[in-house]
Amino acid sequence: MVRVAVVGATGFAGEKLIEILLRHPKAEIVTLACRVEKPRPVGEVYPRFKGLLDVSLEPIDPEKICSEADVVFLALPHTVSCTYVQVFLQAGKIVIDLSADYRLKDAEVYQRYYGVEHPDKKNISQAVYGMPELYRDAIQKAKFVANPGCYPTVSILSVAPLIAAGHITNIIIDAKSGITGAGRKAHVDVLFTSINENMYAYKLFSHQHTPEITQVLGCIAGKPVEVVFSPHVVPLEQGILATVYGDIPSQLSREAVYSLYQNFFKNEPFVRVYEKGLPKVKNVVNSNFCDIGFEIANGKIIIVAVIDNLMKGASSQAVHNMNLMCGFPETTGIR
Amino acid sequence: MVRVAVVGATGFAGEKLIEILLRHPKAEIVTLACRVEKPRPVGEVYPRFKGLLDVSLEPIDPEKICSEADVVFLALPHTVSCTYVQVFLQAGKIVIDLSADYRLKDAEVYQRYYGVEHPDKKNISQAVYGMPELYRDAIQKAKFVANPGCYPTVSILSVAPLIAAGHITNIIIDAKSGITGAGRKAHVDVLFTSINENMYAYKLFSHQHTPEITQVLGCIAGKPVEVVFSPHVVPLEQGILATVYGDIPSQLSREAVYSLYQNFFKNEPFVRVYEKGLPKVKNVVNSNFCDIGFEIANGKIIIVAVIDNLMKGASSQAVHNMNLMCGFPETTGIR
Amino acid sequence: MVRVAVVGATGFAGEKLIEILLRHPKAEIVTLACRVEKPRPVGEVYPRFKGLLDVSLEPIDPEKICSEADVVFLALPHTVSCTYVQVFLQAGKIVIDLSADYRLKDAEVYQRYYGVEHPDKKNISQAVYGMPELYRDAIQKAKFVANPGCYPTVSILSVAPLIAAGHITNIIIDAKSGITGAGRKAHVDVLFTSINENMYAYKLFSHQHTPEITQVLGCIAGKPVEVVFSPHVVPLEQGILATVYGDIPSQLSREAVYSLYQNFFKNEPFVRVYEKGLPKVKNVVNSNFCDIGFEIANGKIIIVAVIDNLMKGASSQAVHNMNLMCGFPETTGIR
Amino acid sequence: MVRVAVVGATGFAGEKLIEILLRHPKAEIVTLACRVEKPRPVGEVYPRFKGLLDVSLEPIDPEKICSEADVVFLALPHTVSCTYVQVFLQAGKIVIDLSADYRLKDAEVYQRYYGVEHPDKKNISQAVYGMPELYRDAIQKAKFVANPGCYPTVSILSVAPLIAAGHITNIIIDAKSGITGAGRKAHVDVLFTSINENMYAYKLFSHQHTPEITQVLGCIAGKPVEVVFSPHVVPLEQGILATVYGDIPSQLSREAVYSLYQNFFKNEPFVRVYEKGLPKVKNVVNSNFCDIGFEIANGKIIIVAVIDNLMKGASSQAVHNMNLMCGFPETTGIR
Repeated sequence: MVRVAVVGATGFAGEKLIEILLRHPKAEIVTLACRVEKPRPVGEVYPRFKGLLDVSLEPIDPEKICSEADVVFLALPHTVSCTYVQVFLQAGKIVIDLSADYRLKDAEVYQRYYGVEHPDKKNISQAVYGMPELYRDAIQKAKFVANPGCYPTVSILSVAPLIAAGHITNIIIDAKSGITGAGRKAHVDVLFTSINENMYAYKLFSHQHTPEITQVLGCIAGKPVEVVFSPHVVPLEQGILATVYGDIPSQLSREAVYSLYQNFFKNEPFVRVYEKGLPKVKNVVNSNFCDIGFEIANGKIIIVAVIDNLMKGASSQAVHNMNLMCGFPETTGIR
Repeated sequence: MVRVAVVGATGFAGEKLIEILLRHPKAEIVTLACRVEKPRPVGEVYPRFKGLLDVSLEPIDPEKICSEADVVFLALPHTVSCTYVQVFLQAGKIVIDLSADYRLKDAEVYQRYYGVEHPDKKNISQAVYGMPELYRDAIQKAKFVANPGCYPTVSILSVAPLIAAGHITNIIIDAKSGITGAGRKAHVDVLFTSINENMYAYKLFSHQHTPEITQVLGCIAGKPVEVVFSPHVVPLEQGILATVYGDIPSQLSREAVYSLYQNFFKNEPFVRVYEKGLPKVKNVVNSNFCDIGFEIANGKIIIVAVIDNLMKGASSQAVHNMNLMCGFPETTGIR
Repeated sequence: MVRVAVVGATGFAGEKLIEILLRHPKAEIVTLACRVEKPRPVGEVYPRFKGLLDVSLEPIDPEKICSEADVVFLALPHTVSCTYVQVFLQAGKIVIDLSADYRLKDAEVYQRYYGVEHPDKKNISQAVYGMPELYRDAIQKAKFVANPGCYPTVSILSVAPLIAAGHITNIIIDAKSGITGAGRKAHVDVLFTSINENMYAYKLFSHQHTPEITQVLGCIAGKPVEVVFSPHVVPLEQGILATVYGDIPSQLSREAVYSLYQNFFKNEPFVRVYEKGLPKVKNVVNSNFCDIGFEIANGKIIIVAVIDNLMKGASSQAVHNMNLMCGFPETTGIR
Repeated sequence: MVRVAVVGATGFAGEKLIEILLRHPKAEIVTLACRVEKPRPVGEVYPRFKGLLDVSLEPIDPEKICSEADVVFLALPHTVSCTYVQVFLQAGKIVIDLSADYRLKDAEVYQRYYGVEHPDKKNISQAVYGMPELYRDAIQKAKFVANPGCYPTVSILSVAPLIAAGHITNIIIDAKSGITGAGRKAHVDVLFTSINENMYAYKLFSHQHTPEITQVLGCIAGKPVEVVFSPHVVPLEQGILATVYGDIPSQLSREAVYSLYQNFFKNEPFVRVYEKGLPKVKNVVNSNFCDIGFEIANGKIIIVAVIDNLMKGASSQAVHNMNLMCGFPETTGIR
């Protein structure tokens, strides 16, 4: 049994972490911290958790957290995570950071996309990119994991096998996300009336998840990889569907592609490759699965991949990382 | 005042036609026909129209329609329209067919995509493709119009200026549609629970609107044009957003592209080109507008275009065609 | 042609007013005012109106409005309307106030329910309650109308015939509303994720529309009327459904009740009474209709009434009032 | 570990049962039966369960089920359950029937509300009504449980304490349900476009859950109880909110009512009474909780109670019953 703290418990990712950890047989939530003035019962902030745990939401007190918890999940806005990471690392805690702060290895790229100088450059290299399908061994040995972004998770998994095989070029990722991806903030752009019966594209050629995708794909390829990445908002809560376009060798058969994917993911408990048919978002909502299907024609491939942005794209992938870092069976509590 | 018949009045397009025509100052609905056993008051089938018109929904009787109406809208499933077109044309009626039956000029292509031999080959050449932005003059002279499909409408308009200028290659159209595009049919795939909080791609590389798009783009280009076209269902009722990818000359500036679009559509009452920003679906829902925005970077362009699939993608475009064919000011009743 | 100003043009009611007035053949929008720092093109704030009108949204300048407009719609928060009413009335303008400020005739009741002392007591008695079905004659002669609230509109119409006949007691109104009723404000309670797949009751026994309902029903009855009024939020945008419970004389037949309603509303262009069956919200969305159905059993009646809260419950009813006050045919532009 | 069969695995309740049982540490799904022609992999019918269980959906074969399972859940349409109950009971199986067939103790009432003669009268008296809060002891000893309906579950729990205390009269239950309550059937009434942005009341004074409610409330009261019960459909998937009106002794204080409810449910793991505030549907979605809040004024009470219709209103309550019948800790797998 590990004692777990969730710091940033009032965002969507923090809420999902609580939900998942409540069912986790080897983890006990001991601390819920967030930006509140004074402690509040969890049932007051989240009536759905009323009666399910006896922990209050309290102001963030790193020393108190260090004295109570073995594992610290940071579900904070970017640049805020940096404020706390050093303390927890020095105290020897297992730290899983769900923000974007330690994902990019190049602080200049961080500054370009996030608009601020990176506040904690020296710890960037400490963080392992927490995508178990690619970095399982490193995660198992790590004390500090940068949990992947939602768009990067689905985007990277959707093309990793073809990238690794050197079989895809001209990659375009058209990603459609539910609105929880935007976080829980009081803004007219995320009102019911702004999202319901609406959809739109945003940040074309400029979304901050783009360098995260190319950084990881470049590692797999062993050379720079470029992608066009286009995010969209669609009127639902949880789920991302990525439609990925690319050119492949025209002699590559459907069977060969399927076999490539099957082999790449053959030991993965949370990736399901479809031999035929395409995945729908509801196939993975509230699960840690990434489902992948595809069609090919005349040297072109269209891959369709889906995840739940709050689960595999955030909180359940974070718990997957915790399982690996703590030596638990990796599907514990998330399957 | 023209007397209008709507044949196929119980589908979504037929219902929208009634809604639009009720507000049209120069048209009077005289006949509503559909596949019913016996006449039914319109307010019984559509309570929303109760008290607004004194016409019953009645079985399709072409002779009766010929005796009552000047203009016939056919909002029937494909292959069913063919059954009636000949009669109305011979009677000298103005016919606007919303089905797919007379859009493709090549009956073999029709057969390949719709799976049946075309039942009325001799009338195919009679039909003018009813997209006013491209074929206004021909429509004004026509007695028979094939009203464009919803996906083709938004897809064609989104790239027409670049195609005409010879400035775009490698076109990929990633289109997201509300569920009314699937028609009103009792099927588990279109239940609330199947669509709500869900999304998916379908018919990749094989959707029947693909040849309609390439046929028209080929006409504009003066040579064959190929596109990758990927339709998706998203959880809303009305609206299509098409995200269109292409390669353009790298020296083409943002201003040049904007100017190209502005010029191409400068006299169009229903196309709005955005100088900056991207259109959202709600900007056009329940209107006849097609709104277009774009971003460019490094020789690549992403165009985002939106329409209401039941309006500009079906019924209001059909009324636009009627206005042109009848010599009314073209925005009558739809602006 | 009257020249119209909409003051408070950025709320939902203001937006609907623009939409309706754009189609109105006898009204021209000359001024759109709201709380902005400096003038902004309407297409920038509302892309959907881009190209449809050449008026900017500008700061509220009562003198300028007086010089430009004949009719002033006030779609402002309560207590803010009071600031402007006097000026427009003195200038002889036709004023239609969509706020709650002049609906309640008793300033003490206003203070109890709205929590502030009424800021303009002397003008309260000037305002005619703008429900055409009850006060048509007075509205036609009025210069100043207090436009009814959304819940009161549907609640009052649903029982008015039975109240007038003295046939109903123990009235309970269980009302379910779409979220536009809450106004366009940036608050976590109206986020997509707070409303979607959710519903709840609020302000039981204490909603500020209760005294508005009882005031009008009391006028009809000629004696005090009490009701239990329970508002709910359900996950949709526009529409209210009120389920109204009451005791009626047990000998009152279904036919007698229907006849009572038919007679009461026989000259009303915007009330539809159902002889059988019950109305659904979609029957009236985007219309000025109030649809009413009912069932009776053992001396009890359940009436189900629906309106669009932004239309009949706000903006189209306001235009209906304008039509009456200006001497236009009363259905002009709203049918 | 008990071996479990789900008969009727393709409805919403059957699907939820699979979802819950997959996480249940003491139950193993051995059989999934439904009306299919031949066995189909579960991942083909439910892609979300792909890779999670190795059981096929197969035609209903009672003898095979008897040889494989210890516990049989029947999630079949009413009158179909009757066909199978006898076989499973004779084989000594634990049977939990989610249909309406054995809930009503009076076969004549069944016939009046369900429109058919009860097909298995002799087993009616065998069935224990599976509401643990009221009949825990009987359920623990039972082999055959009739699992309560969704509306009755929330309705009964909402007023049981006041009924037991003899403190409430003139009960009106205005219930609003998500559309999964209607079952998974291909009908135009449950299309996305029929439910989205819509709501309506139905079966006023005549819904078949009414006698189930009054039967149980009558047992609690020790005398006949009448209620007005009004069901509504609102545009969401899972969840019921019941707003319950009644008259109470005017001297009964808020504290007294709260204390009454707290006492009545003090040992209940799945009922949460709110000391202040009202429950929202999202507080209980995907849980086995029933949350209850209330307001009182002048001798009137309004109780608001919420459940997830597929969970506490069907499948998780069924598993709760299984836990009791099998001697497992009662919250196993559902908390």
